[in-house]
Amino acid sequence: MALRVGVLGASGYGGAGLIERLRRHPEVELVALGSRQYLGKPIDASWPHLAGLLDLRFVDTDDVLAASEVVFCATPHAATAPIVDQARSAGLQVIDLSADFRLDLADYRTWYGEHPCPERLAEAIYGLPELHRAELAGAAIVASPGCNATAVTLALAPLAAAGLLGAHPVATIVTGVSGAGRATDLGFHYPELDENARAYKVAGTHRHTGEVEANLGRVAQHGKAARTHGERSPVSLAFNPVLVPMARGILATTVAHPGTDELSDAALLELYRDFYAGDRLVHVQDDLVQTKAVAGSDRAHVTVRWDARSGAVVAFAAIDNLGKGAAGQAVQGFNVARGFDETLGLRLEGQWP
Amino acid sequence: MALRVGVLGASGYGGAGLIERLRRHPEVELVALGSRQYLGKPIDASWPHLAGLLDLRFVDTDDVLAASEVVFCATPHAATAPIVDQARSAGLQVIDLSADFRLDLADYRTWYGEHPCPERLAEAIYGLPELHRAELAGAAIVASPGCNATAVTLALAPLAAAGLLGAHPVATIVTGVSGAGRATDLGFHYPELDENARAYKVAGTHRHTGEVEANLGRVAQHGKAARTHGERSPVSLAFNPVLVPMARGILATTVAHPGTDELSDAALLELYRDFYAGDRLVHVQDDLVQTKAVAGSDRAHVTVRWDARSGAVVAFAAIDNLGKGAAGQAVQGFNVARGFDETLGLRLEGQWP
Amino acid sequence: MALRVGVLGASGYGGAGLIERLRRHPEVELVALGSRQYLGKPIDASWPHLAGLLDLRFVDTDDVLAASEVVFCATPHAATAPIVDQARSAGLQVIDLSADFRLDLADYRTWYGEHPCPERLAEAIYGLPELHRAELAGAAIVASPGCNATAVTLALAPLAAAGLLGAHPVATIVTGVSGAGRATDLGFHYPELDENARAYKVAGTHRHTGEVEANLGRVAQHGKAARTHGERSPVSLAFNPVLVPMARGILATTVAHPGTDELSDAALLELYRDFYAGDRLVHVQDDLVQTKAVAGSDRAHVTVRWDARSGAVVAFAAIDNLGKGAAGQAVQGFNVARGFDETLGLRLEGQWP
Amino acid sequence: MALRVGVLGASGYGGAGLIERLRRHPEVELVALGSRQYLGKPIDASWPHLAGLLDLRFVDTDDVLAASEVVFCATPHAATAPIVDQARSAGLQVIDLSADFRLDLADYRTWYGEHPCPERLAEAIYGLPELHRAELAGAAIVASPGCNATAVTLALAPLAAAGLLGAHPVATIVTGVSGAGRATDLGFHYPELDENARAYKVAGTHRHTGEVEANLGRVAQHGKAARTHGERSPVSLAFNPVLVPMARGILATTVAHPGTDELSDAALLELYRDFYAGDRLVHVQDDLVQTKAVAGSDRAHVTVRWDARSGAVVAFAAIDNLGKGAAGQAVQGFNVARGFDETLGLRLEGQWP
Repeated sequence: MALRVGVLGASGYGGAGLIERLRRHPEVELVALGSRQYLGKPIDASWPHLAGLLDLRFVDTDDVLAASEVVFCATPHAATAPIVDQARSAGLQVIDLSADFRLDLADYRTWYGEHPCPERLAEAIYGLPELHRAELAGAAIVASPGCNATAVTLALAPLAAAGLLGAHPVATIVTGVSGAGRATDLGFHYPELDENARAYKVAGTHRHTGEVEANLGRVAQHGKAARTHGERSPVSLAFNPVLVPMARGILATTVAHPGTDELSDAALLELYRDFYAGDRLVHVQDDLVQTKAVAGSDRAHVTVRWDARSGAVVAFAAIDNLGKGAAGQAVQGFNVARGFDETLGLRLEGQWP
Repeated sequence: MALRVGVLGASGYGGAGLIERLRRHPEVELVALGSRQYLGKPIDASWPHLAGLLDLRFVDTDDVLAASEVVFCATPHAATAPIVDQARSAGLQVIDLSADFRLDLADYRTWYGEHPCPERLAEAIYGLPELHRAELAGAAIVASPGCNATAVTLALAPLAAAGLLGAHPVATIVTGVSGAGRATDLGFHYPELDENARAYKVAGTHRHTGEVEANLGRVAQHGKAARTHGERSPVSLAFNPVLVPMARGILATTVAHPGTDELSDAALLELYRDFYAGDRLVHVQDDLVQTKAVAGSDRAHVTVRWDARSGAVVAFAAIDNLGKGAAGQAVQGFNVARGFDETLGLRLEGQWP
Repeated sequence: MALRVGVLGASGYGGAGLIERLRRHPEVELVALGSRQYLGKPIDASWPHLAGLLDLRFVDTDDVLAASEVVFCATPHAATAPIVDQARSAGLQVIDLSADFRLDLADYRTWYGEHPCPERLAEAIYGLPELHRAELAGAAIVASPGCNATAVTLALAPLAAAGLLGAHPVATIVTGVSGAGRATDLGFHYPELDENARAYKVAGTHRHTGEVEANLGRVAQHGKAARTHGERSPVSLAFNPVLVPMARGILATTVAHPGTDELSDAALLELYRDFYAGDRLVHVQDDLVQTKAVAGSDRAHVTVRWDARSGAVVAFAAIDNLGKGAAGQAVQGFNVARGFDETLGLRLEGQWP
Repeated sequence: MALRVGVLGASGYGGAGLIERLRRHPEVELVALGSRQYLGKPIDASWPHLAGLLDLRFVDTDDVLAASEVVFCATPHAATAPIVDQARSAGLQVIDLSADFRLDLADYRTWYGEHPCPERLAEAIYGLPELHRAELAGAAIVASPGCNATAVTLALAPLAAAGLLGAHPVATIVTGVSGAGRATDLGFHYPELDENARAYKVAGTHRHTGEVEANLGRVAQHGKAARTHGERSPVSLAFNPVLVPMARGILATTVAHPGTDELSDAALLELYRDFYAGDRLVHVQDDLVQTKAVAGSDRAHVTVRWDARSGAVVAFAAIDNLGKGAAGQAVQGFNVARGFDETLGLRLEGQWP
């Protein structure tokens, strides 16, 4: 019998991605969609691409929780933790796409402020299955990673595990606009952003910096089967994001100076392929990666190069910020936590062009 | 047991769409992909989004035909007809995305020149299931419609059936660039087309004009269950396409002056809903349509308005030119011809944004 | 000595275009920029492209009027008319980019409601110099045309003058997003509009419909040197705009069925060239027009074709909605009204790509 | 009396930018435009935005050289050097936009191979006026910088001069597509690049890497008034470019770890303002930079931040690759070499949006 699943924040972009995937998930019945903004309205009012396909109306949080065995939260950080607490008290499993349960308490305080519900932190497992697959089995709360953090972590994790990060790893990402959400703002007004590339939240101010540092620190210290929370990360990352004119997609360009010159493209590619062996949603490839190749897909494409001149390893990851960077990864985490096939409801292939 | 299916022209955009859909079609085994340009190369060489997913190499036409029970032809007009003849002689069912079997002989000569294989025309059924569902059952050759022709026909067919086309229907479409195919040309070079809208093949020179006129003529004379070929169309259409900077999508804006003033939005919407009742891939809606709502989907969105001031009916259709306009419709036609559920392998919902 | 010129609505897109042009106008000193939203802030706060170039701060309307001999109003309709009245009472010449003085009283009521200041209508001349150059000399109020109205009027005016409009002219435009202004809205949020084409204000609901009908009616009845206001237009236009993903640009595709078949491309092009002889900002060309060719320019590109099959004349115009469609045309109107060279401050050539 | 100026490579994007600027240059008469591809054709055949504005036809190289006192070469590297030699032998001043005279002989061999005309290297001055203004006076050959090299150099030069580059500077740029030129290629076909970000020529393989290293090395060793050629650069740069879907614009994101923690945003901004004091085409600003703010302009926008967490200086530069990155800078170099006002023919302000 299908699991009764609800989605909160169902009128945001993360919510749309969840609806798209959960509708086609064979083990799931999508029973309730929550939205404050579209409360009481039909799904079509928010989502033109679903016109006529879903016979549901948006309801409030209580109605979603009452109807569901599992709830996906695509709601803002800080506002989400109390809802997770409520859902857990009612016995629901939670797949949380917000930032509220991704970091341990100290890191959360550093990047987000006081935690609204620290007592639930112990129930949460960080939902990057490539690093935490075993721990995710049966997780009560899956803390699904941030989109930028996913891209940068996947690019650099094999280096961290191999001790090749060097002292000063640098990550620069380009990102499509949907990562900023659906709330209007002059900065996201079409004519302002079209034909425009602009940096934002630079120089260590983007909160995903801490998330990546925690991820890479765990891998550096404990390898792939790392415990989720705990020690201070020894990794310090110079992270700078650049907004570019496309709806979706993240391309991470990462540079590490490992302090050795005994590397090569071939050796690095083998290192990456070994690291991601068995990970069906991470494709390590010889060719340079591009965001269009993963748009609409739930895979990450990863590659790596050796820059002998400057002694740098350059690693790249491309994801769809709404796929492997959000809804796809959340459903993957749910699948792993439930023991389902890891790709149920997901798309591996995207579309071209 | 799954049908063995091959695709010709598999390194073009139509081919990509077919691979995407046929891979997930439960009654199909995708056995052979043909490409002259990528002959012998792995699929990844042409399609970055399929990297690592298909253990096939591109082969030549003979190999595709030898391996298949059904062949989809996403190859250029004129070059396709002889292949169709060869495939039919070998007993294969053909789903033809080219223009070669869409028109009757007289119309083909008018728009394309001498027909390379007129003796097979009688085996072909025009593959717009919304108009020809019954005739398509068991068709040996499904002549899948052109993308622009699909959009304009779906917008105007209910008016044609109701005798509301007037003497001078006008159709202006905006279309994304993938409709022009994958061959490079200065006119499709990114910097030349970005931030650019330009008309092309205007004033009755676009070949889909004849296809639409034939479609609307049949509906005007015989209604929805029309014979595919035969009489001269009484419809004359002013058709003008405009290329706009997007990868995919067609929006048809059509205007008819029916010579009556006893119309209304509500009456027209009812007319359209009645006409498309039971058609799961055509969604008639109150809201104005938009191409993003059907991008990556195989549905058409249609709506209609009454312009009382100028005595005009204005009807709109939005499709993905690679979905309902090409690969999606071809697979739909295949499903209907085979008696499968009409939406097997297809996507109704697309994605947003 | 340079004229002291001020701009109201200087933090909107029309305002930016005026600042760009008036800064380089040799007969003008730009003395005051008005903005309610950015009141008291430096120009850089609104306009990143002018950073460090203008040593001014945004001031209020009274300050602009007090400092100026001529004021350009790039402010919303209805709100503008009282300001125009105030400016005229103070003896200023007004170049009004709003809709408030474009239509005669009856038409204004039909399309906009009660006129806020009907007593100033008699002082206004419609600022399309190609049709009203002589009347504009010395005009106290130049009522600068709407962007869509400019494109459609320029495409169809030669046909109107020649009696070739037929009973049912049809105009479909594609337009970039800046025409909708700078106010944020979900419909103009980057991810919603990127890769999207959508119709809006269709079926006779767009207010520029009335403006075009008035223009064409005057030309049809009186030719190029038409009086600005007065008689009811005999022209009824089916006008439908489509929003497409580009920042700027309008391409008008217009269709007329003149009821004659004695036309040709060559004859029509000659008709157009004769009509626009001497108009330096309208370029009639053999090639099909495209918006990129006029982006950043203040010219219109126009061409025309004969569709013998359907008996239709198809005429096209491309403009930059912020150039010939707004700020460029306003400065052109100002130049004509002042007796300056018509192109002072303007750009004829744009840039490519 | 105006200088007679010719342009080679006038049907490429660099050529278009030169024509646009030289047409409005008050000291210049544009006498001859060279193009092999459009030889004998009118200018309109290549440049729709100039339709009807230039009464010239494309001619061959000899005709351009014969007609000109100064020639701008917007032709490919390696092919250009012999033309420069020919022009110099005829006594012309050359503004060379190719790479042929940017590097000293050793560096040229490293990055480009054998130099086609080493004997002219001594006549060339590197045309970045912000670093070499004094040396450019009277230069016989102005070697105009590469677009990427310009952006990265402007971002990092103040750090180099102050000894703050650290051992491992990292530069990641995002660039619009026009930087790749006008030759068609599947990689630049609109549907392949739209909604796509992809890295290219990574890991030290992009030739502009050597150009930046040479620039920064000179500044590090000799400050702003550096000799153009000579010593080996001590700087090693990890440079990686990312292509993003826009026609024009480069945003450089550069990271240096200077090994000190006594820095701040304010101190760095002061350092940058001091370094670029008097440079009218480099605007140092507090706000983060964006490419749209310089599109169509010939200025660079630069800013800098201190990332205290990771001990990194993060510096940004935005340019129009066809403005300050190509034609604008070439005309600036010409102005400086000729002793004209540095901004003649240039645009400081661009346009918005």
